[in-house]
Amino acid sequence: MEAYFDNAATTRVLDSVRDIVVKAMTEDYGNPSAKHRKGMEAEEYIRRARAIIAGTLKVPEKEILFTSGGSESNNMALIGGALANRRAGNHLITTAVEHPSVYNPMAYLEELGFEITYLPVDHNGHISLEQLKEAVRPDTILVSVMYVNNEVGAVEPVEEIARIVKERNPAALFHVDAIQAYGKYVIRPKKQGIDLMSVSGHKIHGPKGVGFLYIRSGVKIRPLIYGGGQQGNLRSGTENVPGVAGLGEAARVMYENHQEKLDRITALKDYMTDRLGEIEGAVVNSRKGAESAPQIVSVSFEGVRSEVLLHALEDRGIYVSSGSACSSHHPGVSGTLKGIGLEQRYLDATVRISFGLFNRMEEIDYCIDTLKELLPVLRRYRRG
Amino acid sequence: MEAYFDNAATTRVLDSVRDIVVKAMTEDYGNPSAKHRKGMEAEEYIRRARAIIAGTLKVPEKEILFTSGGSESNNMALIGGALANRRAGNHLITTAVEHPSVYNPMAYLEELGFEITYLPVDHNGHISLEQLKEAVRPDTILVSVMYVNNEVGAVEPVEEIARIVKERNPAALFHVDAIQAYGKYVIRPKKQGIDLMSVSGHKIHGPKGVGFLYIRSGVKIRPLIYGGGQQGNLRSGTENVPGVAGLGEAARVMYENHQEKLDRITALKDYMTDRLGEIEGAVVNSRKGAESAPQIVSVSFEGVRSEVLLHALEDRGIYVSSGSACSSHHPGVSGTLKGIGLEQRYLDATVRISFGLFNRMEEIDYCIDTLKELLPVLRRYRRG
Repeated sequence: MEAYFDNAATTRVLDSVRDIVVKAMTEDYGNPSAKHRKGMEAEEYIRRARAIIAGTLKVPEKEILFTSGGSESNNMALIGGALANRRAGNHLITTAVEHPSVYNPMAYLEELGFEITYLPVDHNGHISLEQLKEAVRPDTILVSVMYVNNEVGAVEPVEEIARIVKERNPAALFHVDAIQAYGKYVIRPKKQGIDLMSVSGHKIHGPKGVGFLYIRSGVKIRPLIYGGGQQGNLRSGTENVPGVAGLGEAARVMYENHQEKLDRITALKDYMTDRLGEIEGAVVNSRKGAESAPQIVSVSFEGVRSEVLLHALEDRGIYVSSGSACSSHHPGVSGTLKGIGLEQRYLDATVRISFGLFNRMEEIDYCIDTLKELLPVLRRYRRG
Repeated sequence: MEAYFDNAATTRVLDSVRDIVVKAMTEDYGNPSAKHRKGMEAEEYIRRARAIIAGTLKVPEKEILFTSGGSESNNMALIGGALANRRAGNHLITTAVEHPSVYNPMAYLEELGFEITYLPVDHNGHISLEQLKEAVRPDTILVSVMYVNNEVGAVEPVEEIARIVKERNPAALFHVDAIQAYGKYVIRPKKQGIDLMSVSGHKIHGPKGVGFLYIRSGVKIRPLIYGGGQQGNLRSGTENVPGVAGLGEAARVMYENHQEKLDRITALKDYMTDRLGEIEGAVVNSRKGAESAPQIVSVSFEGVRSEVLLHALEDRGIYVSSGSACSSHHPGVSGTLKGIGLEQRYLDATVRISFGLFNRMEEIDYCIDTLKELLPVLRRYRRG
């Protein structure tokens, strides 16, 4: 049996996504900027994808900007947002447990002379709203908080954060990294007070190399990439028509019978969490229920190095992540796991199990059976 | 009959490109940063594509950086190159007929306080080497010249330009926008003195949304996109594995029996150029032979607006471009056509015919027959 439990790192594309990508590569392959029919046809793919995505968020179509993925979206929101609003102030706020595609642009902005406040999180991965309130200043131009933490699945109270930010400084922009949230949650930027929001295609069974940035009308932002003036001059370059079309299709499927899909993934998570309880020395770091994302289970296994376990599992066709794949180029343990105060002995003993649309219940049984077989051996090996 | 003659705007992907894209989306869909086998498999796609591309240029693999396309490559070369070398000087040089993805980043750099010199071109689209020599100064940090002009196909003497730049200022970087040249010409960055070179996938029957930047080892350059540290920290974001694999495959095919492919496309161009000679009031702006690119024919038809002709042709299944698709968001006539001193009456009467691997000789006959039929009608209509 194969059990791919690394859907928070990336997902297999849906068959319908594959089909539209192929069609846009081989039949309707025009350049959307071309004035002839093949150009119009290609432009229509973009228009349709934009309409689908705007529909899932209940926002105007023109507020959706296509990018090359979540990292570009985060970079554009932060660097583009900070540079365009520098006259209004010099201060940004984020949390201590963001994805590197947030904290590294923040580090770049610090180099440029911006001041950044990093808010700590509690053992559940949540920031303190009181500390946030104190952190927002008259010169704060942007606050960036992730919706769902990519390592432990913690869900931040986005709406309350927005309310506090706007109360303290109505001009400050609120950016949400929704890369692990879009597709799982019903998100309403208008209602939730979100000004900028980053999404990635390949986390929702769409293609790699494509994503979008939601930009509320009226938000001042600078491009990262200048050129032919595509997408209202905000993101130049021939649009990735197959990718954008695939992203639109993935978004459509994710939000079709959405509650049913969400219930299925939540059931997988709850079942996995329950069954991990059978395993001695297993500590689940993610929460069941609404406090935590439906697709992520973070679990530490006492006395076993996560990388050793990862490779033992892959030999049985089970794919999990140790820490977050996205930050694996950075040596050392995860910022999030430290951030939530995980005991030292668990820091390098933690794996992330993450679900997608293709997972089935029997894969969980298979995984638990395999863990029960492997863990005593691996622990003995370690002591030996 | 259908005749797609807009290959300089974008191309249909090759069947083998489609196949590898599909495989990487549906079977080997792992995240290259993941530590398990599915991650390794995905990484192997990247490695193979990098090896193929490096092989076509005879450069080390580590000098190839994958991007989201030609525009990102150009932006990164110019903005990343300028910002990383600011201490060495404040001056950049380019030409008056570059693609918007070069001149708009240059305009941004001007805003940041850099000084830019724009070299004019002669009626063939070539810069004056004498003027270049005078323009290079001790504080010049970067010179950017396109290899093949996207509108008229003019080929710049890249090797001589590099020699002059390095003689005058050995520290200055030489960037080449090779988006219309890669796949058509045998390019040897080491021999030709190229430090940075931009390439796009979808101009060579590869996927949209992917490209690469050649970066000579030792060149100082800043990232545009910060994050998880992929690609040696120079371009963060989960690699677009299907896109990169497709780009590698397209590069492989383009340079397989390369001379044969080049001869075929050149024959198409020469035949089209010759047959356009049969048409009254047609002026071919591109050159035959080595001075001009094998895939581009620029032609002006006296007394006919190019956009009207474009739509009349598309009704017969013939797709050409008026000006360059990439700059069609910019109102007004082409910078290149003005730059080469095209007579006023031809400026809005010029179309670009551009060839790819899928074009056949009979399509040219069909196009010429159709032009002979349409032009008298369109000219009468205009006078009427």
